[in-house]
Amino acid sequence: MTQPNLARSWVASANGHPDFPLQNLPLGIFSQQGSAPRSGVAIGEHIFDLQAALDAGLFDGAAKRAVEATRGGQLNAFFELGRGARQALRQRLLELFGENSSLRGRIEAEGARLLPLAADCVMHLPAKIGDYTDFYVGIEHAQNVGKLFRPDNPLLPNYKHVPIGYHGRASTVRPSGTDVMRPKGQTLPAGQTEPVFGPCARLDYELELGIWIGQGNAMGDSIAIGDAAEHIAGYCLLNDWSARDVQAWEYQPLGPFLSKSFITSVSPWVVTAEALEPFRKAQPARPAGDPQPLPYLLDQHDQEAGAFDIELEVLLQTEAMREQQLPPQRLTLSNTRHMYWTVAQMVAHHSVNGCQLQAGDLFGSGTLSGPEAGQFGSLLEITEGGKKPVELPSGEIRRFLEDGDEIILRARCRREGFASIGFGECRGRVLPAR
Amino acid sequence: MTQPNLARSWVASANGHPDFPLQNLPLGIFSQQGSAPRSGVAIGEHIFDLQAALDAGLFDGAAKRAVEATRGGQLNAFFELGRGARQALRQRLLELFGENSSLRGRIEAEGARLLPLAADCVMHLPAKIGDYTDFYVGIEHAQNVGKLFRPDNPLLPNYKHVPIGYHGRASTVRPSGTDVMRPKGQTLPAGQTEPVFGPCARLDYELELGIWIGQGNAMGDSIAIGDAAEHIAGYCLLNDWSARDVQAWEYQPLGPFLSKSFITSVSPWVVTAEALEPFRKAQPARPAGDPQPLPYLLDQHDQEAGAFDIELEVLLQTEAMREQQLPPQRLTLSNTRHMYWTVAQMVAHHSVNGCQLQAGDLFGSGTLSGPEAGQFGSLLEITEGGKKPVELPSGEIRRFLEDGDEIILRARCRREGFASIGFGECRGRVLPAR
Repeated sequence: MTQPNLARSWVASANGHPDFPLQNLPLGIFSQQGSAPRSGVAIGEHIFDLQAALDAGLFDGAAKRAVEATRGGQLNAFFELGRGARQALRQRLLELFGENSSLRGRIEAEGARLLPLAADCVMHLPAKIGDYTDFYVGIEHAQNVGKLFRPDNPLLPNYKHVPIGYHGRASTVRPSGTDVMRPKGQTLPAGQTEPVFGPCARLDYELELGIWIGQGNAMGDSIAIGDAAEHIAGYCLLNDWSARDVQAWEYQPLGPFLSKSFITSVSPWVVTAEALEPFRKAQPARPAGDPQPLPYLLDQHDQEAGAFDIELEVLLQTEAMREQQLPPQRLTLSNTRHMYWTVAQMVAHHSVNGCQLQAGDLFGSGTLSGPEAGQFGSLLEITEGGKKPVELPSGEIRRFLEDGDEIILRARCRREGFASIGFGECRGRVLPAR
Repeated sequence: MTQPNLARSWVASANGHPDFPLQNLPLGIFSQQGSAPRSGVAIGEHIFDLQAALDAGLFDGAAKRAVEATRGGQLNAFFELGRGARQALRQRLLELFGENSSLRGRIEAEGARLLPLAADCVMHLPAKIGDYTDFYVGIEHAQNVGKLFRPDNPLLPNYKHVPIGYHGRASTVRPSGTDVMRPKGQTLPAGQTEPVFGPCARLDYELELGIWIGQGNAMGDSIAIGDAAEHIAGYCLLNDWSARDVQAWEYQPLGPFLSKSFITSVSPWVVTAEALEPFRKAQPARPAGDPQPLPYLLDQHDQEAGAFDIELEVLLQTEAMREQQLPPQRLTLSNTRHMYWTVAQMVAHHSVNGCQLQAGDLFGSGTLSGPEAGQFGSLLEITEGGKKPVELPSGEIRRFLEDGDEIILRARCRREGFASIGFGECRGRVLPAR
């Protein structure tokens, strides 16, 4: 169905760009030298200023209406327009930036519309987040963590029936680059019965796929799994920073709370479903003995093309590594194929009780670990809860994150005959507790 | 400190009004015959239209700025102004509506500003809710429910150290009067290993106090317990509708999710801290052997006056009872004194990790049951999970809620020498699953 696509752009830096070739065209919200946040599209090393392009008359029809909906420094109204508007905009952007575009002259003539990405542009959250939900669909992570907490019973009986999720904190979702202040909280020292209060001593990252919700549903309505694609606006990377010592003490019986709510970082570019289309996969066959999903979670198209092949990477750079000019060290190389449930299944499950989803809601997939060493999406798993420290090129070791450590998430989609695309980075540096 | 107060109003229906005498003056957002939602104050059987009063020049100085911040159909900006603005507005309202007010003539001359509450006014949510957090501070409820799930271990070891809470769903909080569609979901039938999908068969209510957050904090800052009052805008009643069968199957390991997110109902009037001041109490002494709170949860003023004496009531009226013209039947009579943690402790705990609270955030207290029969704040507790049905005057029995059942929450504050105040109702009627 998806045709091979290696088309090139007249924007030279787009061709072969690891994240933002012509085939990606992710949307985001940026500001420049303190200007009001506005919408743009990443292409190569540039941001295409949508508002300026709109003012210059480069859009009409459905694409124009789509760009108009990106006004106001947030993409919620654009997300709400749904798939048709998004596809119309993409089609127009492909025309504008294709190698042989007759419009190159018009865009170049007004160079201010193609801004250097790296220079003085600051990225913001792409949307105002109504609610943030964190799922737990990474089955290898669920098993790895389950083993630490419940050696005899790593995976709970509901896991293979229910796309487990829980409500997260929307107010502290922040774009890549926001510093991560080490949180304080209650923890129970090993072997003690009385908790103590102080800075988190087991600060961790979690490698997740983020999902931006498009069109919402009315309270009381459910989104059928076959309609889920209408309700998904795009994707990002998400770091679900976690205070493991706080989490272990607080999480029963109602789940994680302050161990997660101090910050959640996302990559700022919204990678669209259209850009990811070539990297869709059939869901892997469930292992023998696994139950079939209940009918509301089952859809033939979703079975055949609901999974993604996206390579996910985590890198760490410590203060000492920066001083020694050592590059970031890879901690994790994983893939979205370790999701036991698809994004469409998450959407269908979340709304099956009539819960209202709204444009700009954010989902996290849950930590996406692989089964092997090198594929674990958190230090909790890599170090087995701190027992097996990681050695770094600087000669340091890490059980959990130290002040000054920076975590960088990246994603890459590769397929023969298709331009590779990426998500841009999701970075955060740990600051000492105040 | 608090002086006895039985002052009367020239608004005749306010004197002796069970909910809204002169001493209460709660704020809310209403509309009339399809008008745009706007702010008002309940007094007796009337709503005082704040925008109309502002236009008529009845406010100046800090009170005027406070009313200006109530514009736009939501109270968030007013909440953000904090305690000083709220108190200035209250002072002015007391002048306007006191028995001997010299301004009575001006208000009566423009009768449109004092609208009949019951007639054609529709109440809305008072604020746009950023995040909703549900706590679990009702210790009797925690013990009652704990016994059902863990007979040997009803209260988990963290309970008396941590004000347990979890993130709830903000998008489905609705004002009193909104119908409650029976949710559908996955449940595990007793004795089975495979879940089934269908309408919830164990639909329940939960009696809670709601708390509206006032001034917020920046991410990374904590709100000291001694400053919590600056950050609390007011109070309401909250019904945390619960699908017990869905909950039992989904809640491990990350907490309740779809079993709660189909709807949460709140009473629409924001009862201020000032109105509740006479009904504050010292925190009851912790039973011998209970741990002292950690220092960040300990404040002398909070110990001496951080608790509330608010009577809480739940009534049920079934379809058959309405047909037989039987009045609602009381299911629960409880009190906020069963809170093991105060509201100030909740605020301090929630923000101690640097989590950002924002004006218009909503907290639920958790179910506030008493220790005795008749005081249980949910059917789960009353019927011991369905084992002991409730008999109703209509000859019906209830284990859990049936379609057509209406649940009504009420609250009343009483104290010798003080006018009683109430919260208004929080109602919801159960509709069949779609």
